[in-house]
Amino acid sequence: MEGTRIIATYRLRTGEHDAARRAQALALEQSVELPLEAVTDARVRAEVVGQVLDLQLQPDGSTLARVALAAETVGQDAGQLMNMLFGNSSLLPDVELLDVDVPPALAQHFGGPRHGIDGLRRLTGVHGRPLTCTALKPIGSTAAQMAALAGTFARAGLDIIKDDHGWADQASAPFAARLAACAAAVAEANAARSDGGRTIYAPSLSGPEGRMREQLALAAENGVQMVLIAPMVCGMATFHALVRDHPGVAFLAHPALAGAQMAPPALLGNLFRLCGADAVIFPNHGGRFSYSPATCHALAAALRAPWQGLRAALPTPAGGMSVERVPELVADYGTDCMLLIGGALLIARERVAERMREFVTAVAAAAAETA
Amino acid sequence: MEGTRIIATYRLRTGEHDAARRAQALALEQSVELPLEAVTDARVRAEVVGQVLDLQLQPDGSTLARVALAAETVGQDAGQLMNMLFGNSSLLPDVELLDVDVPPALAQHFGGPRHGIDGLRRLTGVHGRPLTCTALKPIGSTAAQMAALAGTFARAGLDIIKDDHGWADQASAPFAARLAACAAAVAEANAARSDGGRTIYAPSLSGPEGRMREQLALAAENGVQMVLIAPMVCGMATFHALVRDHPGVAFLAHPALAGAQMAPPALLGNLFRLCGADAVIFPNHGGRFSYSPATCHALAAALRAPWQGLRAALPTPAGGMSVERVPELVADYGTDCMLLIGGALLIARERVAERMREFVTAVAAAAAETA
Repeated sequence: MEGTRIIATYRLRTGEHDAARRAQALALEQSVELPLEAVTDARVRAEVVGQVLDLQLQPDGSTLARVALAAETVGQDAGQLMNMLFGNSSLLPDVELLDVDVPPALAQHFGGPRHGIDGLRRLTGVHGRPLTCTALKPIGSTAAQMAALAGTFARAGLDIIKDDHGWADQASAPFAARLAACAAAVAEANAARSDGGRTIYAPSLSGPEGRMREQLALAAENGVQMVLIAPMVCGMATFHALVRDHPGVAFLAHPALAGAQMAPPALLGNLFRLCGADAVIFPNHGGRFSYSPATCHALAAALRAPWQGLRAALPTPAGGMSVERVPELVADYGTDCMLLIGGALLIARERVAERMREFVTAVAAAAAETA
Repeated sequence: MEGTRIIATYRLRTGEHDAARRAQALALEQSVELPLEAVTDARVRAEVVGQVLDLQLQPDGSTLARVALAAETVGQDAGQLMNMLFGNSSLLPDVELLDVDVPPALAQHFGGPRHGIDGLRRLTGVHGRPLTCTALKPIGSTAAQMAALAGTFARAGLDIIKDDHGWADQASAPFAARLAACAAAVAEANAARSDGGRTIYAPSLSGPEGRMREQLALAAENGVQMVLIAPMVCGMATFHALVRDHPGVAFLAHPALAGAQMAPPALLGNLFRLCGADAVIFPNHGGRFSYSPATCHALAAALRAPWQGLRAALPTPAGGMSVERVPELVADYGTDCMLLIGGALLIARERVAERMREFVTAVAAAAAETA
């Protein structure tokens, strides 16, 4: 069975007495959506119906249920993978998708990161320290304002400058104009650098697949090699199709609309990595959001640990981080990560260039200390 | 401001003392993603930053916060609408998106259902009673098996026969083969009917936008006028783009992956309707799922109530319903709804045709009683 089954682990917040029944119902819900007695075909009963592998009662009273789902129900489609893992069960507030593993053939089909940590290091020329990243804010600005900011950030030596994830194709700074202006500003700063470093600009994709393909074509015309994308906004099928068809582009995944019902290590970790995220942004503990330290560490592990021969993806803790926390962040995540600080640097206003340089220096210093 | 702002209502499960601060943080998170003091541009401060309109403490201790978001941040994209409404805030388990209203220009742009209740009645020829619907199950079957079932259901007089939402492009019954076989079986049954009735087959779309467009073209070649789609799996941008470009096709929306953090009346009601769902399937109370009666009624109201001149969409209660509950369902939702029963009829196995006819008869009888 191992070769043909997806193993999904769910947390059921239900009484111990009810856990076995609920797990069995879940296995049916996420496969044939029928009572077992209504499944008349012997092959379907044996090979397609979801199977409960085991139940583990937890100290908090919840139960972990491991369920084996038939890989054939997913076919080749990443959207269908999400549908079979959590489509109907997402409607149940007491069910959480906690972990996912896929058979080798499915791992190879989806293919994981095309660049991964090693590829991002080659792209940026950064070795032995975390990458630095910041965001172009706020939405509502003009393309010229964002390009000026991008130039400032690039001259300060940031490795990656991404669009804020709220950027789409708004009238104040339409995608094409913003892309051209920001890419030019970053290229100009790169040309003037003498330290061998190089900044990458990552514009934010939006709209349905067709529109995103147009945006990727525009990005290529402007020499842009990385994009920001929110897989749960555009749909996992779109995300994977774009990754598959643009092997030269690095994909920085944003957690927007990921919700709180799929455990971050499973969704932002395993599933985003499986479908091709080279780096994954997540709200670090102690920031504006509420992921716990344990969740953050499990997520970083899911992105970097050996898994099915897929490349490792770069953990990118974010969400209200500050320069003051850089030593702690580097101690926490090591050097194979990317640190993303946005608002805390922009708040400095006219001192923003100086603060950006402090960020870059702090990361180098913290990495040297751990070396 | 009314003409240019989206009004989003969030439930914050936070202490009363902290509600004002949290609401202000939410308004910033869902707009500029910056502390207010970092927003230097006067126009952005006035026109783009989200504004807290009011707070209402609830009896359960939670607070409802109405927040005005600038429509310009959404532009024309339904995916970006989701991103601005709930992108980052979805990561916070104590925040719920409870209600959404949009300015008239945005309502007109997204356009709502292209057929709606009246259009679905014209398509099926059903008046004065709820429509009947069932699903082709289980996945893992062959196309021939599903076509045989579709023929049985059509001869029993069902109005709409949809693919189970777990159907995608699986090897056991690839989309094209399943579509052709099921459409032919239903057409044959329709040709033999003498009661003037007519069954519609709705295949399930899967994959990214480009693949769905191919599937819609195949559907048109096979004379199919309705499709099943899960907007939260494929992404709202893809859903809306397909609706916009296929005005002749009716869209039956499935709640897969909708989660429990956006209130069903807001997400499955307002937002699915806004983006073009003609009918919306939802898990009725008392079935396999956990929506409360109040949630179901609010959702039906959100689909049918006059709103911005958009067509009404057909509520489709489902999820473990039975023929025995038909009178209660009709009393509950009236005649402007669609009743979807799947597994409870298929469990009858060799008596499935008889049970389907009982379903059809029960709906007509219950409707006659309420008339």
